[in-house]
Amino acid sequence: MKEKDFISIIKQISNSEYIGDDCAFLEDLGIVVTQDSLVEDVHFSMKYISPYQLGYKSVMVNVSDVAASGAEPKYLTIALSMPADVDDDFIKEFYKGAKSACGEDIKIVGGDITGGDKIFISVCAIGAVGKRKISSRKNAKVGYDVIVSGNHGSSAAGLELLLSGQNVESDFIKAHLEPVAQVEFGKKIAQNVPCDYAMMDTSDGLMDALSAIANESNVLLEIDFDKIPYDNKISRFQNWQDLILYGGEDYQLVAVVPKGLVDFGFVIGEVKEGLGVDLKMNGNRFHLSKSDIENKIFNHFVKG
Amino acid sequence: MKEKDFISIIKQISNSEYIGDDCAFLEDLGIVVTQDSLVEDVHFSMKYISPYQLGYKSVMVNVSDVAASGAEPKYLTIALSMPADVDDDFIKEFYKGAKSACGEDIKIVGGDITGGDKIFISVCAIGAVGKRKISSRKNAKVGYDVIVSGNHGSSAAGLELLLSGQNVESDFIKAHLEPVAQVEFGKKIAQNVPCDYAMMDTSDGLMDALSAIANESNVLLEIDFDKIPYDNKISRFQNWQDLILYGGEDYQLVAVVPKGLVDFGFVIGEVKEGLGVDLKMNGNRFHLSKSDIENKIFNHFVKG
Repeated sequence: MKEKDFISIIKQISNSEYIGDDCAFLEDLGIVVTQDSLVEDVHFSMKYISPYQLGYKSVMVNVSDVAASGAEPKYLTIALSMPADVDDDFIKEFYKGAKSACGEDIKIVGGDITGGDKIFISVCAIGAVGKRKISSRKNAKVGYDVIVSGNHGSSAAGLELLLSGQNVESDFIKAHLEPVAQVEFGKKIAQNVPCDYAMMDTSDGLMDALSAIANESNVLLEIDFDKIPYDNKISRFQNWQDLILYGGEDYQLVAVVPKGLVDFGFVIGEVKEGLGVDLKMNGNRFHLSKSDIENKIFNHFVKG
Repeated sequence: MKEKDFISIIKQISNSEYIGDDCAFLEDLGIVVTQDSLVEDVHFSMKYISPYQLGYKSVMVNVSDVAASGAEPKYLTIALSMPADVDDDFIKEFYKGAKSACGEDIKIVGGDITGGDKIFISVCAIGAVGKRKISSRKNAKVGYDVIVSGNHGSSAAGLELLLSGQNVESDFIKAHLEPVAQVEFGKKIAQNVPCDYAMMDTSDGLMDALSAIANESNVLLEIDFDKIPYDNKISRFQNWQDLILYGGEDYQLVAVVPKGLVDFGFVIGEVKEGLGVDLKMNGNRFHLSKSDIENKIFNHFVKG
């Protein structure tokens, strides 16, 4: 069973209108909230990531979701579970990394530490709404531009390098182990767009985000591959186009907003009538439905 | 290393004034937030608890912390990690239990599901402050009464029954597997007390909570064992007095408030000058320092 199937069970049982975007928007409290977990040997391996980087990345993953909502990331709680024989330095380095990812503006305010067989991290992040308009995947409209904040594919390329044993200093490996949440991009979108808009991070890949927005908004996104920004060193990977389109964990943002409001980021396409994603690539045009894209995407569960 | 030692490392690194009470009070947002985790074979065993009860208890554990802050429990996110071979029914039952623990007033608004070797649950709970006064462990003052919401020892007695293989229907087992967070007690305390007060849940045992409040407030709590409410069937356990004093997971509340403001709950003692806990029991008076009590308490980590 796939994570998305689980989510639909939960949605059904909890009958919650909040479950859909990565953040829940709690209008009465003026906040958004999100929670994302990292599990050892599922989402990361201690062979490749340092405790500092793990703390750093656990925070960034969640800050990215808050940034994608348009809210201002403010507070975090961190739950950490780990074997009893992990040493003090692990904890110190983990929290130093977490603190560094928080910068000056985000505060760690709680959480817990428990024993366990493997390392498990679950972070809850809270953002302040203030006067900002909050995004929704349902808000893409015909005629809007599709804009991304930056390079795609670098993180997945870095993971390929790590898995093949090439643990050398590289921009790709750094992109994988120390991603940077696009807080400023999210803030500028939320401040520049006075009407409904869609925004998501590309944690599960660019195409996953595009597909989610297209299907939730019931529109077609027409995307030009040549306009997607990437680090051109990626072309030495055989599957470089797939890395850019389907590779996860770049933690960039994709915003779908009315034309003419935004003079930053990279316009990669626009919204048309229809459903799904149309991709112009290598002189061809491919139509990709929700299931076409889902089949391509990494599934957290080994058994589908 | 003990959890409390870890917490002090985190406090030191994150330099956060929020870490101390179970909930962080985020005054600018008018909310409290808490996060607590349950790990398979550390906090529970699937031999003894049903998926429904596990979902139920995961929620109650966190709602209890919000109730202890004095805030109104409103929203939850739930992270669930589990092996790929867990069946659909597990998830359905888990979420039914979680939903049942939420009742009408609390909503599940997000979270995630991931793969993993063992079941790991981490819940984040958010409470609304509104016009309520928020508690702090630092707020006990000389002359205040020490009040508990209900019976102690039942949950630990239930755990003893389960561990010894006596899986029969019993109030004690029910208390362990399906605790009820004291939301109404917390609300009434917060509404009746217009000044600083201390409140905590007794998730790690009554003496743990009393010791935490005494030491954070720099006072002595004088407690009369005979005034602590308990289910009198507990006296058939050889160590029944220890179960009442040190047994965890009753999820009752202990409030330390000015005399004369509260006409509900059970007054078990009062605040004096000094430090720690004085316990009147079996015709004697014992002084218990912070370390005396810590040494008695269950430690999540097998290796101390």
